[in-house]
Amino acid sequence: MTRVALLGFGTVGSAVARRLLESDLVVSPVNPTRIALTHIFDRHADEKCSTFGAGAGVTWTSRIDDVLRSDVDIVVEAVGGVEPATGWVRQSLAAGKSVVTVNKQVVARHGAALWRLAARQGRQFRFEGAVGGAMPIVRAVSDGLAGDRLTRIVAILNGTTNAVLSEMDATGRTMSAALADARRRGFAEADPSADLDGEDARAKLAILCALAFGVDLDPRAIAVRSASGIAPGDFERARRANGTVRQIARADYDWSRSTLTAWVAPAVVPAQSIFGMAVGAQNVALITGEHSGEVGIFGAGAGGAATAVAVIGDVASIARDRAAIVPPPRLSSDFTMRQAELPTLSFAEAV
Amino acid sequence: MTRVALLGFGTVGSAVARRLLESDLVVSPVNPTRIALTHIFDRHADEKCSTFGAGAGVTWTSRIDDVLRSDVDIVVEAVGGVEPATGWVRQSLAAGKSVVTVNKQVVARHGAALWRLAARQGRQFRFEGAVGGAMPIVRAVSDGLAGDRLTRIVAILNGTTNAVLSEMDATGRTMSAALADARRRGFAEADPSADLDGEDARAKLAILCALAFGVDLDPRAIAVRSASGIAPGDFERARRANGTVRQIARADYDWSRSTLTAWVAPAVVPAQSIFGMAVGAQNVALITGEHSGEVGIFGAGAGGAATAVAVIGDVASIARDRAAIVPPPRLSSDFTMRQAELPTLSFAEAV
Repeated sequence: MTRVALLGFGTVGSAVARRLLESDLVVSPVNPTRIALTHIFDRHADEKCSTFGAGAGVTWTSRIDDVLRSDVDIVVEAVGGVEPATGWVRQSLAAGKSVVTVNKQVVARHGAALWRLAARQGRQFRFEGAVGGAMPIVRAVSDGLAGDRLTRIVAILNGTTNAVLSEMDATGRTMSAALADARRRGFAEADPSADLDGEDARAKLAILCALAFGVDLDPRAIAVRSASGIAPGDFERARRANGTVRQIARADYDWSRSTLTAWVAPAVVPAQSIFGMAVGAQNVALITGEHSGEVGIFGAGAGGAATAVAVIGDVASIARDRAAIVPPPRLSSDFTMRQAELPTLSFAEAV
Repeated sequence: MTRVALLGFGTVGSAVARRLLESDLVVSPVNPTRIALTHIFDRHADEKCSTFGAGAGVTWTSRIDDVLRSDVDIVVEAVGGVEPATGWVRQSLAAGKSVVTVNKQVVARHGAALWRLAARQGRQFRFEGAVGGAMPIVRAVSDGLAGDRLTRIVAILNGTTNAVLSEMDATGRTMSAALADARRRGFAEADPSADLDGEDARAKLAILCALAFGVDLDPRAIAVRSASGIAPGDFERARRANGTVRQIARADYDWSRSTLTAWVAPAVVPAQSIFGMAVGAQNVALITGEHSGEVGIFGAGAGGAATAVAVIGDVASIARDRAAIVPPPRLSSDFTMRQAELPTLSFAEAV
């Protein structure tokens, strides 16, 4: 039996809780493990407990120490934001827990140090849900394609922006109308600037660059251009060339020169490509390796239920072998950041 | 240092050897492990050794006992066929080695027993390269999506047939002309019947059904219709409905009734779908889960270099934690096989 605590009871946290409390929770035939949710920590624990229902055997608390001093094996962090989330992850590892997080900012800024701390503690630090929702891209890049030498990642990594742009594409609406619609459907927050401006996607791209190329990359070093100015006319112009507009995150690594080029920006892509066909909150990634050529992966990039699948996959991986050794990545600062030429919305500089 | 032996020096085996002997072998930043190829077993070891070049520190042999009695940690099986390959895998596990295989027939027919043997021995049995070449679908289904309850797999799993059909599609050629072309380009064997008739794809589908649904499935129970009779006229008819023809492998599992429906057959698919757009030896899989919706993955489904990436990913996974416990899957025979309605080449029964 593996005991799990949950930090943060928002969209993702509540979906994780719901799934873990399902009476018929079947964790894959390859992960024959019993997993029990025993603690839920949230600032508004009292209120949320009464709304959600207590859940048999679950302790609700608004004191982090109740989790740190408990006998849980795994802490799932779904709080969001850099602090206090990073501190709580660090304290959990220090207290001998493994940690699963969906927090891309924590991983992008402090992931390497937290992973090293986990390894020193003989525990694990996993974050499949921090990038790409349900699509298992962290495993693909760090594990499945580990035998290749990866050279390029081109991806749609922000579900909110993709939902807004694909809605504008399909209906001819303005961005503010598409945003209002996305908010109604739960795809966009009140302030979507972190999504549209590329801050969310560059944190995720920085994580993938670390795993794929071994670079110790501050996400703020990745060039961005905001998608907030995209208007119906941009789609009309793109359409004349059989294209459409998507927020693309791209990184190219030149191993012979240790040179990285990385950007996040709205770009014109062919309408009938894997990028142009991504609608709603879908995420996509095309990963190029010297030996395997192009490998692609796509799936629901946002939403509580999809992200909960990634979280529970990580929990199951830890639960099935709690003594597993997961060596921290070897990240190097010895690389050059090449000035990115951000795409303009013309086909000449398309993806 | 992890020592590796290779069984079988054909297309895949020689690609694995080439990659392991590359002086700049970089195994992902997350797998900081030294891996050394120390033994190559092949029936024609002498001849192949002189053609390939010996490789520093590599022992070539045509006696399996030289591998079984050696101090290698991992045996890579790239022999093909059910026997003697299965026997050699069993003997390797019995001798305390972990095994990585690319052999879908061995995994589909004897995988569960071999995995249990590996677990009893405290060793690992891995087979990412047995399905989908470079695309990491075994990890996606058994690990990344382990937190979901998977209900459907629709896929293109045979690179040879896809290369032939997509060539017929693009050029209007007959099957025999497309086959001759595929042979020239190394995509098809002299006798392509196992590919066209669906035997190869159903072995791979059976493996995915075991991992996704926990069913103990004899691949010969999967309904098949051969693609060998597909003619240019079939493409013309499909095209009039914006479709094309591909060999599709599909499995649906009803968890409430423990009922499986599975088939491999040529089918009409929309030309602008992920299936219709798969050309050459590409493989694709669309995996549906109750919680994550649809997750897709695609990549080079055949070819030595691509399959070698999958093999080395598995070798690296084992090397980084040789004491890892990978519990064998819980497979059940307690399910009903529903009679599959094989698709006809009309849109009414399209995927």
